[in-house]
Formats: sequence, structure tokens, C-alpha cells
Amino acid sequence: MKAVNSLEIPRFSGIRTFMRMPQAAEDDLTDISIVGVPFDSATSFRAGTRFGPAALREASLILKPYCPVLDVDILENLTIADYGDSPTIPGYTAESLDAIQKHLVPFYRKKTVPIVLGGDHCITLAELRAMYEAKKEPTALLHFDAHSDTIPEYFGKPYNHGSPFYHAINEGLIIPEKSIQIGIRGHLYDRHVLDYPKEKGMRIVLGDELHHRGCDEIIAEALSRVQGSPVFLTFDIDFLDAAFAPGTGTPEVEGFSTRQALYMLRKICTKINVIGMDLVEVLPDRDTSGITALAGATVIHAFLASFAWKKSNKLCQGYFR
Amino acid sequence: MKAVNSLEIPRFSGIRTFMRMPQAAEDDLTDISIVGVPFDSATSFRAGTRFGPAALREASLILKPYCPVLDVDILENLTIADYGDSPTIPGYTAESLDAIQKHLVPFYRKKTVPIVLGGDHCITLAELRAMYEAKKEPTALLHFDAHSDTIPEYFGKPYNHGSPFYHAINEGLIIPEKSIQIGIRGHLYDRHVLDYPKEKGMRIVLGDELHHRGCDEIIAEALSRVQGSPVFLTFDIDFLDAAFAPGTGTPEVEGFSTRQALYMLRKICTKINVIGMDLVEVLPDRDTSGITALAGATVIHAFLASFAWKKSNKLCQGYFR
Amino acid sequence: MKAVNSLEIPRFSGIRTFMRMPQAAEDDLTDISIVGVPFDSATSFRAGTRFGPAALREASLILKPYCPVLDVDILENLTIADYGDSPTIPGYTAESLDAIQKHLVPFYRKKTVPIVLGGDHCITLAELRAMYEAKKEPTALLHFDAHSDTIPEYFGKPYNHGSPFYHAINEGLIIPEKSIQIGIRGHLYDRHVLDYPKEKGMRIVLGDELHHRGCDEIIAEALSRVQGSPVFLTFDIDFLDAAFAPGTGTPEVEGFSTRQALYMLRKICTKINVIGMDLVEVLPDRDTSGITALAGATVIHAFLASFAWKKSNKLCQGYFR
Amino acid sequence: MKAVNSLEIPRFSGIRTFMRMPQAAEDDLTDISIVGVPFDSATSFRAGTRFGPAALREASLILKPYCPVLDVDILENLTIADYGDSPTIPGYTAESLDAIQKHLVPFYRKKTVPIVLGGDHCITLAELRAMYEAKKEPTALLHFDAHSDTIPEYFGKPYNHGSPFYHAINEGLIIPEKSIQIGIRGHLYDRHVLDYPKEKGMRIVLGDELHHRGCDEIIAEALSRVQGSPVFLTFDIDFLDAAFAPGTGTPEVEGFSTRQALYMLRKICTKINVIGMDLVEVLPDRDTSGITALAGATVIHAFLASFAWKKSNKLCQGYFR
Amino acid sequence: MKAVNSLEIPRFSGIRTFMRMPQAAEDDLTDISIVGVPFDSATSFRAGTRFGPAALREASLILKPYCPVLDVDILENLTIADYGDSPTIPGYTAESLDAIQKHLVPFYRKKTVPIVLGGDHCITLAELRAMYEAKKEPTALLHFDAHSDTIPEYFGKPYNHGSPFYHAINEGLIIPEKSIQIGIRGHLYDRHVLDYPKEKGMRIVLGDELHHRGCDEIIAEALSRVQGSPVFLTFDIDFLDAAFAPGTGTPEVEGFSTRQALYMLRKICTKINVIGMDLVEVLPDRDTSGITALAGATVIHAFLASFAWKKSNKLCQGYFR
Amino acid sequence: MKAVNSLEIPRFSGIRTFMRMPQAAEDDLTDISIVGVPFDSATSFRAGTRFGPAALREASLILKPYCPVLDVDILENLTIADYGDSPTIPGYTAESLDAIQKHLVPFYRKKTVPIVLGGDHCITLAELRAMYEAKKEPTALLHFDAHSDTIPEYFGKPYNHGSPFYHAINEGLIIPEKSIQIGIRGHLYDRHVLDYPKEKGMRIVLGDELHHRGCDEIIAEALSRVQGSPVFLTFDIDFLDAAFAPGTGTPEVEGFSTRQALYMLRKICTKINVIGMDLVEVLPDRDTSGITALAGATVIHAFLASFAWKKSNKLCQGYFR
Repeated sequence: MKAVNSLEIPRFSGIRTFMRMPQAAEDDLTDISIVGVPFDSATSFRAGTRFGPAALREASLILKPYCPVLDVDILENLTIADYGDSPTIPGYTAESLDAIQKHLVPFYRKKTVPIVLGGDHCITLAELRAMYEAKKEPTALLHFDAHSDTIPEYFGKPYNHGSPFYHAINEGLIIPEKSIQIGIRGHLYDRHVLDYPKEKGMRIVLGDELHHRGCDEIIAEALSRVQGSPVFLTFDIDFLDAAFAPGTGTPEVEGFSTRQALYMLRKICTKINVIGMDLVEVLPDRDTSGITALAGATVIHAFLASFAWKKSNKLCQGYFR
Repeated sequence: MKAVNSLEIPRFSGIRTFMRMPQAAEDDLTDISIVGVPFDSATSFRAGTRFGPAALREASLILKPYCPVLDVDILENLTIADYGDSPTIPGYTAESLDAIQKHLVPFYRKKTVPIVLGGDHCITLAELRAMYEAKKEPTALLHFDAHSDTIPEYFGKPYNHGSPFYHAINEGLIIPEKSIQIGIRGHLYDRHVLDYPKEKGMRIVLGDELHHRGCDEIIAEALSRVQGSPVFLTFDIDFLDAAFAPGTGTPEVEGFSTRQALYMLRKICTKINVIGMDLVEVLPDRDTSGITALAGATVIHAFLASFAWKKSNKLCQGYFR
Repeated sequence: MKAVNSLEIPRFSGIRTFMRMPQAAEDDLTDISIVGVPFDSATSFRAGTRFGPAALREASLILKPYCPVLDVDILENLTIADYGDSPTIPGYTAESLDAIQKHLVPFYRKKTVPIVLGGDHCITLAELRAMYEAKKEPTALLHFDAHSDTIPEYFGKPYNHGSPFYHAINEGLIIPEKSIQIGIRGHLYDRHVLDYPKEKGMRIVLGDELHHRGCDEIIAEALSRVQGSPVFLTFDIDFLDAAFAPGTGTPEVEGFSTRQALYMLRKICTKINVIGMDLVEVLPDRDTSGITALAGATVIHAFLASFAWKKSNKLCQGYFR
Repeated sequence: MKAVNSLEIPRFSGIRTFMRMPQAAEDDLTDISIVGVPFDSATSFRAGTRFGPAALREASLILKPYCPVLDVDILENLTIADYGDSPTIPGYTAESLDAIQKHLVPFYRKKTVPIVLGGDHCITLAELRAMYEAKKEPTALLHFDAHSDTIPEYFGKPYNHGSPFYHAINEGLIIPEKSIQIGIRGHLYDRHVLDYPKEKGMRIVLGDELHHRGCDEIIAEALSRVQGSPVFLTFDIDFLDAAFAPGTGTPEVEGFSTRQALYMLRKICTKINVIGMDLVEVLPDRDTSGITALAGATVIHAFLASFAWKKSNKLCQGYFR
Repeated sequence: MKAVNSLEIPRFSGIRTFMRMPQAAEDDLTDISIVGVPFDSATSFRAGTRFGPAALREASLILKPYCPVLDVDILENLTIADYGDSPTIPGYTAESLDAIQKHLVPFYRKKTVPIVLGGDHCITLAELRAMYEAKKEPTALLHFDAHSDTIPEYFGKPYNHGSPFYHAINEGLIIPEKSIQIGIRGHLYDRHVLDYPKEKGMRIVLGDELHHRGCDEIIAEALSRVQGSPVFLTFDIDFLDAAFAPGTGTPEVEGFSTRQALYMLRKICTKINVIGMDLVEVLPDRDTSGITALAGATVIHAFLASFAWKKSNKLCQGYFR
Repeated sequence: MKAVNSLEIPRFSGIRTFMRMPQAAEDDLTDISIVGVPFDSATSFRAGTRFGPAALREASLILKPYCPVLDVDILENLTIADYGDSPTIPGYTAESLDAIQKHLVPFYRKKTVPIVLGGDHCITLAELRAMYEAKKEPTALLHFDAHSDTIPEYFGKPYNHGSPFYHAINEGLIIPEKSIQIGIRGHLYDRHVLDYPKEKGMRIVLGDELHHRGCDEIIAEALSRVQGSPVFLTFDIDFLDAAFAPGTGTPEVEGFSTRQALYMLRKICTKINVIGMDLVEVLPDRDTSGITALAGATVIHAFLASFAWKKSNKLCQGYFR
């Protein structure tokens, strides 16, 4: 099982898998398991993220294995394969969450870290349920987003991409006291929207706070929260400013650059124990020049490099520490 | 309640309503009631038609009241108002169908012809249920589409934009023997997909047949089927060729021009008793130059002109007869 | 003064002129004078045709000199140069018409046929005034369009892209009895909009009539009208169906294909005496895939080939006659 | 008069008004009056901002009432309604300025703050004239832009979107000594273009200066200039960098992020007395992914939150002060 | 090896292969072998068709196995697999032709019909060379295109997407007397461009001739030419009118609809012995709404259905004969 | 030879040259010579930069001569002309490099600074060869880019847009010890990719290092490297972050803003002796809103202003020093 060599076969060639990695099936075993979840029925505004997994695979063609910032070669340290997509049932949110959970449980049972290509953010609830079903314990949450997604219900119904972390707290899938949401800046329906997660112990770093205090302080705080526990990392692409990630359903201005995101990710993920990750809310039909999918794929690449760095127990060169 | 005069106030001005018609509320009464149904959760491929009603309103700004083909002025003969949109519940198809039905019943109870701006084609099931609930009898169906939408279930679930007419037949909402589907040309999952509607008496005119026999023969056949009954007219924009309507979720090539569509509509609708209409499956995010929404709005305009012509009992001038 | 050879220098190279023709200045003399008029302030709906001349030049790169339908080589029979653009004053319609007229008069005084790249249709009024100022006599009008553009005033003002031919008739610049408007199909503000031009003797061929009677009958009628007089040819790109020319400000469905347009043009223009031409209403910002500018450039090419054919007194080969 | 609740009716539903606010007519009274001015005839380069008001309304659907940065709920403190659009006369700049002024005077006579959705920047001249006609005194100007727009004439004519503030100074509508232009960075026709406004007392903060000195210093300077007087706030979207606001007619690189803009706005507008505001130069046809209209709508939201904060006399929480 | 069932797993899911067919490797054997050739270095105008194979795979997701026109189920009659892409060397045309040829020879040696997803038209030369190397005899050519692509050299070099059929004739790969080019309508560099292929015996049906004589006459002529020999079918997407296939490098107006193309293909391909096929010149970056890739994928589907029909020896139902 | 005055003739008018400068031919002499090189065959991923020169000319229309940051008027200090484009041979990389070199040598022999509008980055090799052929000595290299482009071969061939600086070092065209590459951040095929240039003495400033140390430190280092020698300045537009320059073939996130780029350029270029410059890798088909071409044209403008400033021996005003 080898990735394609892009110096021999041009990277615009061939059937698209993430980073041109080999394809695998459920009973294979690799350090990293790429799984798409093409689901967007839980979207409150613009739909279309069902094409997110395909866009992330396409954008990832351009990525290469060696990360000069961390001085680490991903493929020297990790085995990675693309396991295709989960089934879903468009228009049936609750049933789709069940189908996705069922599809993901075997991955969480194996010694692998699943990386899910979304899909709208509601799928994270299915991932966390699968993780819990497999591992029987809750996880710390490291969450980059413009929205806290903790609204109990929308339109009189429980499941929506604005609600997964309300349910995750409620169902005991995550440990709020060991969790942190970073970059939250979308306007709110009212001042009490964030009360529930805060009461449960969640740390919510507003975008304005991150802008004021800077990345380094928030990195420290995130580490102090999630270090020592298994961590689930969820990255909503709208953490990035609308200029850096226009192709998403509810973009928000006054956000963060890819530099800020990747810097924080590398600083945190080289020091923690991530057991699952997703990258959600890439909406290709609004991503007119493709930079959103590229940003999403590169976020995953930064996680892979950090994970490889940690595994290789390597001392970082140059400016990274 | 008057439309805005576009010779006085440029038509790019103001809050968008269909054809710049006045806004109205549920208890008003007009000959024609424009109602949006921004629902797309039942879509099997590309979502996004929830923005269809807004796109149709925007595109309709360009339309003017006098139709030179029929020599009839719509506004001299009809009162028209825009009643805004129905509620929906994204991600909950069955529940949305109920909400839409509930919203539409009052319109069918009034002496008005509702024209629904879709939305994916699944909403027609809610319209037909509302019509049936109000009028207590089934209707003839005049259906332009590339797909017959008569598949019993998708992904193990009953409601999908590929299934409304299966349910409409099954629930007795339409009279198959007085119904006709025109332009059906999408490839099929297998040869038996069309058996059920045919057995029930539905006439299905394949696209290939319409191309061979020509519009006039099919017009005659449609009239012979639906004349004499109240008729529900449903127009899926993908009846048009992908070149004429690229902005839809499941476009099909080898289709029909706007000329063919409008010609057939005028020839048929000036001679029948339409009690409800919809225009569905306009998907703005894929409608890069806006011609699909324009085609959709003009289809509605052609229906309005035909309806006005019939009401005015006018003998048509010139080339139309 | 020679065109660039695209078999030697790739046609995507170099500073853009129409069909890669040489540039010239006002006092040069060529059979054909290409002049841009980048003006769109008189637009009633979508502006942006001020970038029409540049888009037509860009699209024309792809055109080659030999027309196989007419078996004629344009460059063997005609000298052509690109004279750049006329001055205009954005936001000042009346003053711009004066500036354009002043710029064009010298061309009409020379033994050349000016071909104007528009711009919105209001510029044709300036062209006709320039033609009249130079030649002191009115002209027959051969007009392809979806709109007759004969509304006396818009928003209380005389000059608008919906009004040039009202003024042209009124000012005696064209001879209505020798003129014809073909393809008119836009809906109208009221039934009397077309009364004035008809009363003055203009022949208006509605789109519906052209669809019914076919191109050949209308070609014959056009020839019987305009043959024997000098003819001004004006081609609004929205004569074409919205599918064939999406990039225009007021597109109309139920229109005509490029095949129909070019067929009619060749049949008519090989037999008449054109003294001026324009191609108007190409709006690049709405022309997402560039086919509208390509259609516009090819319409001009068809005119050039017809003109070359006539000049060469050639008997046409093959299917054209 | 209530805004629509987006937790009940999805925000992609219904007839578009700004932030889903109720519609109102001229003789209603609300704290804030949203008025569109769909005018772009005074544009020197790319036209199309006549569709700006519609795009801003569409983009504003996503905005919610509570601002977490200022800890203030806009709708708890302010009544807001959408009053539709002003009339304009495309292609007649001077006459349009008169029509816009006439339309706006009643708003300035009422106890309301009009927020105008542009349109090109020339409309600000009409707004200032209306303000002056109603209030009989000039105002301080707080102006965010890439261009100072103080050129006396373009193409031999006085009114152009590059000239409004020359006329505003000249006509005594603003008090240059109490005014400030921030972010000016477009290249100039010559070094003397900025002499006139400077001689009259205007403070012009070049983009380079803002980059060097940082937002806080310029905020202080702006406050020292405009505090104590009634202030007119005009925000040209091209103050933002082209990456953050590509959809405008004369974008400029080396500009500012939405973070910088909103930070400055909140810091300044919570402390001053704004009597009129506009947001201009959003050009939807160039706004391929919609982030420009979103940025524009969010700028207005930041102003509304600041205004609500000031009205509520609230002490700001957290990082804002 | 089975295709994915789109009634169970939504067709927007999974790793993209043509029509969701199984993947295979060189030594597998299926009736039909899908092979991509992502090469565009030989393009004389717009490059980008290297992304054609990926776009065709994406567009093909929407296609289903049963063709109602021919009443045939492709998958009941044929085994099909996707064999991924050929290697290429961007910027080295001659060397790439060699690499492609080498990659394709094994397919032509097997009992399979390779269908190549292009790529620019120059790759057909490599295909024909591979076919000849494997089978040791030339083939009849059935060629749909707007351009005859028989120019000996461009820019002083032999290989260009305007030259493959010059070389194919010259190298004895095709039998001109048994070959036909249909739809040729691009303007020419000069009148002698088509002399060489005609002298060699090639039949060139100009677009104008096809428009005049109609599809049925040309179908008959094509059959009389290519029946009885093995046939290589090459379909350049620009055979279609620019309105039907905007996403290509050298689009041409005055072309043909998808209806005309598919009608001709079915009528011809059910009666001939095709040994190789390609679909070339789809350029995704210019295919703003995706209809070009859809048209291309459907052309291949029509060929597959015709091939299946022939293999099943089926008597066609309904309107096809 | 004068530029067009955009206060008299609107800048959207006329045949496009860079900054509306006069056109010139090879034997003219100006301080600055604008030359396009429309070549993209050496592209390893997305092609299309052959349309870069045209896009840069179009975008440059908006630029004006006076730079307020440097307080310098370009046209008061420099003569500039647009010399059109170099010949190229699409699909033949080595031969194209020769043709470009031959075209450029005469410019390097004249007392002019050629500014090349690219084109993919491989063309820089032809420029450096031409420079060397004319001047007989190597040059220092000042290189802004996301990629070092020092890979010896791709796909078994020497010339590719990822390889020019390997060859430039190897052929002795540049002096590595006096050269610097700034902003390099693309992931690498392996850790040894950068060994060769480093061993030869090249200074490679990774993007991460530039982010950490800031512009001022890197400016100082660049000056210490290249001052005192003739300098060739090459600017790959992907030095900019993908949000600021989406329209390029291999965009990279975590990059730099236009502010950072222009700030560095002005600080460096006012103090060094540049003898040649290029701006490469603008890919219009991916530049959906045109900001990439605008950024590219403005980079050239910043160089021109710096060059003019240096020539005028002017002391910089305001914040620049």
C-alpha cells in the first residue's frame, strides 16, 4: 500500500483518493483512516457539503509528504489509507446519524485514528457516538469553529448542524471541563445561547478574545485543558475568515487566517493524544476558486505532520518549538 | 394592491417579490397566489433548491405584463400577489411535507390558484395532499420533467424527490388515467421503474418520443387526457435541456428548448382548468449565468398569460391558436 | 498592415485587437473599420457592457479568415483594421451620445464600413446620427433583437437602451418603410408599445412568428424590405436565446440559435449594401463561460465573410446559395 | 413590527429584507431606517452596484441580533425597519442625485438614523445634501475608503463616484476640520489630487500610515476629530483589502481585514453621535463567493450593535472597552 | 466486480470512478475498459483538459444503467471497469504520445474495447498508434468534431491537437476511404487546409451540410462508409454547439445539440463494430455549470448502450430503429 | 509616446496595454520594457498561465502613476512601453525556452529593464539565459515564492516550472551566494529537495521563518545578500496566500498578504540595482474575481514606483523610509 509518486506520475492523474493514498477496506489496518461522510441534510442555511469529501480529495492532490516547518515526513512515520465514504440517507437526519455511527464504530475499535471528511457539522455527533460506543468513555474536545453549535433544537427538532455539541454534552460523549471551543464569533440568537455549555464546564474562546490575546496564550490554555486525555479534534472550516474559506455554508468575517490556524494546530497537536478528527463544512459550490477545500486539506495535512512528529519523537527544527 | 411600474421605478429597485407584485398575507384573496417552498432536503444528488424561490423572484423582475404571443395583458385580467414562503424543517423530510401541506391548505380552500416556487420536486406531494385535503377529490396531472419521479423508496425511505408521484398515485391524490408525464428521459435504475405508474394508467411520454413525434402530437394527446378535469400542473425545470437550464440538481442532456416548453404550455394551458401549479428544481448555486431561474420565471409567466387569456375568453391574434 | 498568422504565433499571444488585425488611427483607410464603444450608462437593468468591446476582441482571437460555408477568405478580399475605442462619459447619456457621434462621423465620411463593438443598444442612436451627419440621408434598418427598443422615454428621460429606434424614426435617421426588426419577443409594458413604429411603417417580426414561419420566409421578407437601399445592420446579442447568449443584460428565453442567426445573416448580407454595423449588449460579467462574446464575434465574422463574398462577386459553393 | 425568528423559520425563507426586519413605509418611525439606493451610473470603472442593496439584504439573512463582542442585543435596544429603495434614473447622474436627495429628506427630518445600502459612492453626495436640507447644518465625516473621492471632475463632468467629497466640502455639507478619511491607498492621477481636501482641513490617513501606526492610534485620532459633532459615517467596501472584498468596482490590494474594520468601527461608533450612515460599492457580479456582501452587511451590523450599545448605556464586558 | 447501487448508497458518495464502476488493473479483463489520458500540452489555445478525465468521472455519477430509448440495460450485457489514468509528461508532447501509446497497447491486445477519457485531441494519435501496434491493421474512423484536425504542423512542430488526423493518415493508422469526419465548421487558416485529407479519400461533412441535409442522410452516409470494418470512434466535445458544451478549449457556435449527437450515435453505433473510442476536449475550468462534462459522459453512455444493444442482438422497442 | 489620461478617456476604454502605456517595437528604447511570455506548457499541475499576460494588462488599467507611499510619480521619472508578447511553442518546452530567450536577448542588450509578464515559472530560465547571453555575467537573484523550484527533473525531463532555479544555478546564470528565496512553504517530496540549492550557497527563507521573524529582519537579510550586484527579481504570485492570490496553479495557504509583499518590495527595491524582473504564475481561469491579476499588476507597480524613486534620488516622505 503506497502513495503515488508525483514526480513520476503527474498529480493531476488517476482516481482521486486523499493525498493519492492507497484505498483500503474496513478490515484493513493503517495508522490513519480517511473516511468521507457526505452528509448535509442538517444544514440550517446553505446545503452542499455532501460534496465536501470529494472536494477535499481533489484539493489534497497538491499536498506532498514532507513538512518543512516540523521537519517531518508524514509517510516515513505513518501508514495512511482512504476508506471511501460512509452511507447516509439524505433528508433523514436522525437515521443518517445512526448509519454514520454504525459505519464508524469499527474504525474506533481498531488501532487507528479516523479522519473524517465532512459533511456538515452534525456528523460530529455521529462520530462521537461511534467513538463512545467503541471506547466506552468520553473524550476531551478540541474544537475550532466560528460557532459553538450548542443550540438544543432548531425548528422544533433536535438534530441540526447548530446542535451537535449540545447533544454531545448531554449524552456524556465529551467531558466539558476538558474541552475548549476556539474562535467562536458568529452573532447569536440571544445572550443565553452559550449559557448551557459554559455551565457544564466548557471553555469558549470568543473570536474577539483570540484576536486580543493572541494565539500563544490560547494555545497554552488549550493544552492545559486537553492534555492528558484522549482528544477529539473537530475543525469547522468557518473558523477561518470568509476571505480564507469562502466556500462554506455560514461564513463569518472577522475570523482567522490559515497561518493562525496551522500555527495553533501544530503547536497543540504535537503535544496531545488525538483519537479522532474531522474537517467539516467545506461547501464546494460556493468555493469558486477552490481555496477553501485547499485550506481544509492542508489543515488535515498539518494534523498528520503533527501526529507523525509526535510519533517520531522528533525534536523540531528551525522556528517551530 | 398594484405591481410596480418599471417605466417609473427601475426594475432593479426594491424588495424582491415575484414580478414586483404586491405582497399579501394568508387571508387576502387574489386570482393567483405566489407561494415559495424553500425545501431541498429530499434531494438525491445536488442540494440547494431551497434558494430557488429567491432566485425565481429575482429573475422575474425582468418580466412585463403584456404577452405579445397571446396578445393578452396578465394584469388586466388577473390579480396576483406574493404570499412569501412556507415553513419547512431542513433535514426532516416527512415533517416538512406536513408543514408545507398545512401551510398550503388555506390557499386551496380559497378561490385562488396557488403557484408554488420550489424547492425540490418532493414538495409537489405536499401540494397535492393540501389540494386533496381542501377539495376532497383527486386531480389530473400535467407533468413536464426529465424524470417520472415514481420510485417507491430511496435508501430505504419513502420520501425523496424521486418518489412524489409514486405516493401521489398510491394515496389517490391524482387520477393516473387522466394524467400525463412529458419529456421523461433520464436513464433508469432498471427497466421496471416505470411499470407501476404505467399499470395504474399513467401516460409517460419519453423524451425520445417527444423528439420524434413533435410537440403538436403530444399537445393533442395531453389535451385529450387532462381536459375536462381540474388539472395540477407541475413543471420540473430539468424538462429543459441542460443547455437551457444548467442550474438544477440532476440536469439531463438531449432535452427540450424553452421554445418547445413555452409553445406546449400555451397551447395546452389556454384550454384546460388548472387549479394548482408549481415550478421546481431551480438550483441557483449551479445557475452560473442565471438563465435557469429566468427560464423558470418565464414558464410561470407563460402559464399566467395562458390563464389570463382563458379568463378573458379572448380569441388569439397572429400565429397563436 | 497584416493580421497575425496564428500558425506561427499562437493566438493566445499579443496585444488584443479584433481578429488580431492591425491597429490603425482615424486617418487610415481600410475597407472595414472596427471601433469599440464602451458605453453602458443607458442600461435599464444590468450594466456592464462597457467591457463588451474588450470581450469581443478577446473572443475574436479564435476566428480564422477562411469561411468554409461561403468558400471565401475574408482577408483576400477585405482590408480590416482595429481603430480602438470611442470616448464616452459614464453617467452622462446625452453627452456620451454626442461624443460617440463626433468620434464616428469621420468614419462614415470615409470609404469604409464601420463595425461598432458595443456597448448598450443606445449607442446605435449615436451611430445613426453620425451616419446621417456624414451621408445626409437616412438608411434602411436591418435589426435583429429580442426587443424593438422603441419606447419614447424611460423614467422620464429620453435616452435609454430601450429607446434608440424611437428616436431614430423620430429624427428621420432611418426609413421605417424599408426597415425590419426580427425576433422581437420580450414581454411588453403594454399592448401599445409597438404601435408607434408600426404606424410609421416598420415591420416587426415577433419571435413567435419567426419560429412559426421559419428563417427562409423571413429572409425573403427582409430582403424585399432592405434591398436597394443602403442598410444599417444592428445586431443585439439577445436576439439569441439565453442559452446561446447568457452574457447580456436583459436575456430572453424562447429565442434563436447561433445557427439560425448566422444562416439568416449570410443569406441576407451577401445580397445587400450594408454601410454600417454594430454588435451590442455583450455583458462579460454575466458571460461566465465566454460563449456570448464568442457568438458576438462570430456574428461579425459572418458579416465580414458575407461582405467579402459580395465584394468578390463569388458564386457560392456547396450548400449556400 | 418584528423581525422573523430564524430558529422557527429557516433564514433562507421568505421575501428578503435587511436582517429579516419588517418592511415599513416613509411615514413610519423606527430608530433605524434601512433604505436602498440602487445607483451605479457614476461609476468610473466597473458598473453593477445597482444590485448592491439586493445583495446586502440577501447576505444579511445570516446575521443574528446578539453581538457577543459588545454583549448587546440589537433588537432589545433598537427598532429597525426596511423602507425599500429610492428611485433613481440610470444614465442621468445629476438628475438621480436630485431624486435620491428628495427621497431621503423625509428620513433626515424624522427622529431616525437612515442607513443607506449603496450603490456607488456618488450617492453619498445626495445623502449629505438631504441631511443638510433637513437639518440645516453640516456634519463631521467619518470615512473609511481606499480612495478619497475628492476629484473635482471626471471626463469634464462634475458628478462621479470619484468626486462626492469634493462637492460635499465645496457645498458646505461637511466640516473638513472635523472630518477624517481613513485607509486611502489607491494610486493617484498626480500628487496634487489630495491637496484640496487637505487645504480645507480634512485629515487623510493613508493606508500605509494606518498599517504603520496601527488601529488604536487612528481610532484615537478619529475620535478626537469627530466626537462632539453629529457624524455622518460612510463606509466604502474597498477600504477592505481585495481579498476580503473582491466584489467591488475598483478593488485595491494592500488593504485591511474585516477584523481591523470592525474593531475600529466598534471602538469609534460606541462613542460618537452618528446621524446617517451608508455602505457603498458592493458589486455582486464580481462577488463570486458572496463574501463582499457579507462583509458589507456585517459592517452595518457592527454599527447597529455599537449604536445599540451606546443607547443602552451599557458597560462593555470582556475584551471590548 | 460490481457497480455501486445508487438506490442504496447515494451517488454523491465514494471515490469517483466512471459510472461508479469497479476499479481494475491492467491485467483484468472486462468488455469495456475505461482509461483516462490527462494530457493537454498539445493544445493550441486554452489548456486545461488534463482535468477532463476527473470531470467526466464526476459527471458520470448521475448516469444509470438502463437506457429507455434503446430498451437496454448496459450492465446486463457488458462488464465495465475503470482502469485509472495513463502516464503523461506535461510539456513534452512527443514523449507523452509515446508514453500513452505504451500504456494503451495492452488494452488493444486484450479482448476489450478501451474508452479513453481525454485530454486534448492529440492523444487520439497515441491511441491509434497503440491500436495499430496491437492489431497490425488500420481502422475506419468515425469522427465527430468542429475541426478536422488535419493540419500538418503548428508553430513549426508536428504534434498539436490540430494535427492528429494528418499524422494518422500519413502513418497509415486509419483508412481514409472508410472514414468520415462530421460537423466540421471551425473557420480555417486558408481554403487548402482540408485538401490533404480529401485527396486521401476522407469524407468531410461540414457543419453547414449537416444542418442542411439533416441527421438521417449523414447517418446513412456514415454507415455506408464505416460498416464492415473495425471502427475507431472519436468524439470531440466541440462537435456540440458552444451552448451545449461551453467547457472546451476552442468552442464553436453554429453547432449541434446533444439530441442530434446522441441520435446519430445510437443510429450508427448499434450497427457497427467499434474497437476503440475516445471522448476528448472537455475543459473543466471553462465548464462553469458542468454541462459539458455531463454531455461528454452521456455521449459515452450512449455508446455503451448502443454497444450493449448490439451485443444483446436486441430488437429495439418504441421509436428507435 | 504617452500613457492615456484616464481622467479624459475612461480607463475601461481602448486596446489593452500594460497601464495603458504606449506600444513599442523591439528597436524602440524605453527605461522599462513590458514583455509578455504567454507560456504554460511546463506546468506540473494546473495549466492556463498562457493567459496571464492578457490578464495582467487588463488588471493594470486601474493603476495610476502616482504612488502616495513613496511620494513618487512613475511617469515623471520613467519611460515605459508595452512591447507585446514573445513567441512560444505550446507543448514543446525546451524549444519554447529557446524561442523566448531569443526574443528577450535584444532587450537585455539595450539600456532598459525588461519586465516580463508570465507565464509559468519555467520562463524565468529563458529570461536568465537571455540576460546572461547579453550581459555575459551572472546575477543575484531576489526570489519571492511559495516554492523554491529547484527540482532537477520532473517525470524524467529537465524542464518544468518546478525546476528553473536548479538549472539557473547549474548553468551559472545566478550567483547562489548572492541570492535569496523568500516565503518558501510548499510541502516537499522529501527532505532533501532543498539540499542542492543550499549547498550551492542559496539562502532559503521558509514561510514559517518569515512569519516568525517578520518582514523587517528578512528585508535586512535580503539587502545584505543582493545589494552591490545587479539583481534579477522574480515574483511568483503564489508567494501570496491563497486568499490573496487564488488564481494560480499551485496555490498555498499559510502565505503572505499583499501588504507584506509590497512593503518588502518597496523597502528592498528602492535600494538595489534590478536589471530584470518578472511576475509569473497568474492563472486567470482560476481567478474568479480577478484579485490575483490585480495583485500581480500592483506588484509590478510597486517595483516601478521603487525604481522611479531610486532614479529620482528622492527622499521618501511619510511612513516609508
